[in-house]
Amino acid sequence: MVDALIFDVFGTCVDWRGSVARAVAADLPDIDAEAFATAWRAEYDPAMARVRDGARGYVALDDLHLENLDRVAHAFAVEVPDRLRLNAAWERLDPWPDVVAGLERLKREVIIAPCSNGSIALMTRLARHADLPWDCILGADIARGYKPQPEVYLAACAALRLPPEAVMMVAAHNDDLAAARRVGLRTGFVPRPREHGPGQVRDLRPESDWDLVARDFLDLAEQVARSRKR
Amino acid sequence: MVDALIFDVFGTCVDWRGSVARAVAADLPDIDAEAFATAWRAEYDPAMARVRDGARGYVALDDLHLENLDRVAHAFAVEVPDRLRLNAAWERLDPWPDVVAGLERLKREVIIAPCSNGSIALMTRLARHADLPWDCILGADIARGYKPQPEVYLAACAALRLPPEAVMMVAAHNDDLAAARRVGLRTGFVPRPREHGPGQVRDLRPESDWDLVARDFLDLAEQVARSRKR
Repeated sequence: MVDALIFDVFGTCVDWRGSVARAVAADLPDIDAEAFATAWRAEYDPAMARVRDGARGYVALDDLHLENLDRVAHAFAVEVPDRLRLNAAWERLDPWPDVVAGLERLKREVIIAPCSNGSIALMTRLARHADLPWDCILGADIARGYKPQPEVYLAACAALRLPPEAVMMVAAHNDDLAAARRVGLRTGFVPRPREHGPGQVRDLRPESDWDLVARDFLDLAEQVARSRKR
Repeated sequence: MVDALIFDVFGTCVDWRGSVARAVAADLPDIDAEAFATAWRAEYDPAMARVRDGARGYVALDDLHLENLDRVAHAFAVEVPDRLRLNAAWERLDPWPDVVAGLERLKREVIIAPCSNGSIALMTRLARHADLPWDCILGADIARGYKPQPEVYLAACAALRLPPEAVMMVAAHNDDLAAARRVGLRTGFVPRPREHGPGQVRDLRPESDWDLVARDFLDLAEQVARSRKR
C-alpha cells in the first residue's frame, strides 16, 4: 500500500519511437525516419552520462535533445528545416492505449506524477498533448540530475513529503526499478515489449521480484485499488 | 498574449480563512476559530521573512505552518489534539466558486500552474482536494525561496522554458503583482474582497495599471481567450 505512484515516461507511458519517427518523416521525407528516431534516442544516455559523472553541470533534456539532433542530422547528412520544431517532437509523444484511462483510475486512489529525465517544461507540454492527468511534475529538473542517480528518486519522495517506502516507481525498464529499489522505493513493472520496435530484446519481462507486475496501466490501477481496500 | 498563467493560490484561488477556521472549529471547539485562523495566518509572513533575509535556510511552508501553529496554540492557551492533522487543514482549502470552471477554460488556452509559497506537496494535495486542474506545480519549492523574492517568479518561467514576458502572474494581491512585474512578467489582478473577512481594507482594487484586471476567473478566462484570438 503506497500513497503515490511515480512513473517513468519515455517508453513506459508514451511511444517515443513511433511518435518521433512520425515527426521526422514529416520534416525529413527523404530518410529512414525510424532509423533516425532510433539514432536520436541512442544519443540520449551518453549525453546524460556526462551530467551524471560530473563532466558537465545539469543541462535540461530539451537542450541535450537539440544537441543530439544536430549530431544525428550530421551523421545522416541531412539539413533539418526547423531544428526547434523537430526537437519539440518530444513534447508530442502519443501515449500507449491503456495509459490515460489507467492514470485516471489511479489518480482516484493515489498521487500520480512523472519521475522522468524530461524537464518540467517538456513533461508539462507532453501531458497537455497526451492528456496525462498528473497531480504534479517531478523528475530530473527538481533533482538537477538524471536517473538512475539515487537523488532523482529521493527528490521526488521529498517533494511529496513521503518516505520512499510510501512511493512506488513504475517503469517498463528493469534498471530504473533496480535504482529506485536501492533507495527504498516500492517498484512496479509494466512491460512495453514494442517500445524499441518489433525486434526488441530487453525488458520483455520482469528481471527481479518487483513489488508489483502488471500487464498494463488498467491492470496496474486494479491491483493498486485492490491493495488499498485490504 | 501569453503562453502561461501562473497563480497565487492562498486568497486568490482558495478561501484559506473560512477553510482553516472550519478545521480549527472542528478540532478546538472552545475557541474563536476565525480569530485563531487569522492569528495563524499572521505568523505566515514573519516566518518566511527569516528565510528571505537569510537568517534561516529554505524551509518548506508545511514546516513553517506547523511551527506557527504551535506558537498560536500557545498564545491561545489551547492544547491541539493532533498537530499534524490540524496543520493539514492547509491542504484542504476550498476554492472560490469561480475558480475550477475558470481554470478549466484557461487550461484549454494556455499552461496553468500555481506560483505559490506553498510546497509541491501542499499544492499537490490541495489541488486534489479542490479539483484545481494545474498542468504542473511551480512556486517556492523549485526556487527554494519565498515570494516576493524575484527568483521565485523567474524560476517558474525558467521551469516552463518561457521568457518572463510570455508568462502572466495572476493574484488578488497588488504587492505580488508588483514583484512579478519588476522581473518582467505580465500581470493579472482578480479582486478577492472577502479574503480577510467582512472588514477587509487592502487589495480591494487594482493599485497599478496591471496588464489585465478581471472580476473573477471566468472573466479572466474570457479575456485571455479573446486576446489569443486577436
